[in-house]
Amino acid sequence: MTTGGTFHDPRMRGFRSRSSVEAVLALIDGRVGRLATESVRLHEASGRILAVGVTASAPVPAFDRSAMDGYAVRGEETFGADAYNPIAFDLVGRVRPGHPGGLTVGPGQAAEIATGAPLPAGADTVVRVEATERLGRIIRVVEPTPPGRHVGRRGEDIAEGTTVLPAGRALRPQDLGVLSAIGRADVEAVRQPDAIVIVTGDELVPAGTVPDGHRIADANSPMLAALISRDGGRARVVGPLADDRDLIRSAIVEATAAADLVLISGGSSTGPEDHAPGIVAELGELAVHGVALRPASPAGLGFVAGRPIVLLPGNPVSCLCAYDFFAGPIIRRLGGRPPAWPYRAVGLPLAHKLASVVGRVDYARVAVVEGRVEPLAIGGASILSSTTRADGFVVIPADLEGHPAGALVTVWLYD
Amino acid sequence: MTTGGTFHDPRMRGFRSRSSVEAVLALIDGRVGRLATESVRLHEASGRILAVGVTASAPVPAFDRSAMDGYAVRGEETFGADAYNPIAFDLVGRVRPGHPGGLTVGPGQAAEIATGAPLPAGADTVVRVEATERLGRIIRVVEPTPPGRHVGRRGEDIAEGTTVLPAGRALRPQDLGVLSAIGRADVEAVRQPDAIVIVTGDELVPAGTVPDGHRIADANSPMLAALISRDGGRARVVGPLADDRDLIRSAIVEATAAADLVLISGGSSTGPEDHAPGIVAELGELAVHGVALRPASPAGLGFVAGRPIVLLPGNPVSCLCAYDFFAGPIIRRLGGRPPAWPYRAVGLPLAHKLASVVGRVDYARVAVVEGRVEPLAIGGASILSSTTRADGFVVIPADLEGHPAGALVTVWLYD
Repeated sequence: MTTGGTFHDPRMRGFRSRSSVEAVLALIDGRVGRLATESVRLHEASGRILAVGVTASAPVPAFDRSAMDGYAVRGEETFGADAYNPIAFDLVGRVRPGHPGGLTVGPGQAAEIATGAPLPAGADTVVRVEATERLGRIIRVVEPTPPGRHVGRRGEDIAEGTTVLPAGRALRPQDLGVLSAIGRADVEAVRQPDAIVIVTGDELVPAGTVPDGHRIADANSPMLAALISRDGGRARVVGPLADDRDLIRSAIVEATAAADLVLISGGSSTGPEDHAPGIVAELGELAVHGVALRPASPAGLGFVAGRPIVLLPGNPVSCLCAYDFFAGPIIRRLGGRPPAWPYRAVGLPLAHKLASVVGRVDYARVAVVEGRVEPLAIGGASILSSTTRADGFVVIPADLEGHPAGALVTVWLYD
Repeated sequence: MTTGGTFHDPRMRGFRSRSSVEAVLALIDGRVGRLATESVRLHEASGRILAVGVTASAPVPAFDRSAMDGYAVRGEETFGADAYNPIAFDLVGRVRPGHPGGLTVGPGQAAEIATGAPLPAGADTVVRVEATERLGRIIRVVEPTPPGRHVGRRGEDIAEGTTVLPAGRALRPQDLGVLSAIGRADVEAVRQPDAIVIVTGDELVPAGTVPDGHRIADANSPMLAALISRDGGRARVVGPLADDRDLIRSAIVEATAAADLVLISGGSSTGPEDHAPGIVAELGELAVHGVALRPASPAGLGFVAGRPIVLLPGNPVSCLCAYDFFAGPIIRRLGGRPPAWPYRAVGLPLAHKLASVVGRVDYARVAVVEGRVEPLAIGGASILSSTTRADGFVVIPADLEGHPAGALVTVWLYD
């Protein structure tokens, strides 16, 4: 609280200096590593990050198999066959997928075979059914079929010992198919980061509550929980808590003991009710407080008990911006994912000038209209609806005053 | 089963004719609509599809509020102020977010105000703290600050009655923030499609089991479950079931009573063990059987009890292809999502010729190497690992024989 009795020194209220975005990202790069691994069951592994490459301990397929419906024979015995000169074979049985039947195909013999069925002993090729005529136990082949034709060889798909999926892979649906094919019931994946979001602010009513009087609803926790989930983490929300130092301190102590990282929404600036930065400094290290980033300058980053703590401004747009720049990369790094934005980038021309101020990075929400980038007319950082009207954002580097109309800019698309 | 005694007519074993991909997609377009809606809690709504547009029933903010830390005054009283001629105000109190304090600011008076706090009665502007000096209860203003400056007006973010999110929207993280800001606890969303995947095949052991002898592991159900989940559905797997007509028939009857759509993996072709097409025809309508699509020609589509049933080839690559072309669009349509592929498309030149056959659409797995498209050398449709080595796929239309080296093709990226 600002006390009376002396002239107010504005430097004591504001940030002494602001870190550059690059410096904060370099700090994250140097200080935040991947979490440990855990075993994940195959059916739950989609989208998870492989911690260890997967090697096939057996070939796929594990046996020679037919790639067609037809007849398994000795291929050299079909040479010379045509429609006017069919070559006859004795049908000795039938093999189906899962039912090899213990057959052996001798000279002059054929076995009926279905796609995927194991090739019987003695046979080396499959004559497709369309190239045969059948009369009882006689099969007439009308097409020469050399050895190996229509046969999927043992190990053809995956040879034994092959690394089928490398470490670091975000598992695709078809990767689960391959894992299943080689008989894996589980994989070693990077643990999902557990994040606790502490929401602070006397003015807040819980998300999902109708705001009353001079209180507003907590807009940040549902947004942050969804962002954390998108980035592969699991979120738990604490609060909204009143702007009470002891209450917030206890919540931070508990959260840093229980989670892999902590996000604190609100109370991140330098005012009398901004308790979080001081608490973080007291409990551990306040590495960053104040960033040359609009609209998220009252953001911070600290470490308590080895866990990263991100201080996010309570203002929802600033909160989103600070998440996108700092919290998101931390969560993705912890989870073994590429720290870069998950947003798709497109290069498009600006419909109008996009102004900025030298010395800070600008996170400008834009719409894409008929292939051109329209900066959204934004009254202030508090306009949350600008992020829902926006198709994405443009980042203006700290050393630029903005971009002129017509300039090609990179738009990071929210969808 | 093929019985002896007559010459085999190959036309009876294969497909009489194959539907074009376009015809199947047109059928899906005409026959598959959006599911009904359900109420979804705010915290669970990320990524869900809004069934009904959302209108703000109250303005955001609901009151004029300060956009800065500073002092609330009557702006016209600051005119003429500068560092050499500060204008003094009497400090009459303090307003903080959530604590309006019932203050009124009269002529010559100022109230300390924090960012986000409601503007007290009588005041019309906020002088930022950096433009003031404070001595006890005297505030000296050194900068003229016109009325309205640093004030976020009631309704500035969202005016009452505004449609904040349109029907059909896939909810983004920040959309949850806006919904919370307007006091919404839940939204009307399109119901998530419930899909049952019936896996058939005597040769299959369950996914997550080590294959033994001439059996192979079910690779399709984990892949399909992950694809369904990606496309906004919920999957339940039944099987693997033996190739037993009665067993499969019962499973289909049960599934069509319990789910919004049914996928049957395996037994989709025209062989003696391919039971699913006949069962679907018997229970309802087999609208498509056989598609001019490589490698998924033994695919089908039917309707039982009004529920779509997709017949997917048991071969994993064919299964993925048939999912991508037919099952995926059905699930996305049911769930109110755009039916188009969720894959990102890039245009790149072919490193080598990509051959195809006129008369069928080809789904060719490719790698992207140094900005050029490398068709993967693929021994057969059964090479599941081709889909994990691939970065994506190229679709070759039915009327082309392929593309020459250097041709610009569209690659649909799996990631």
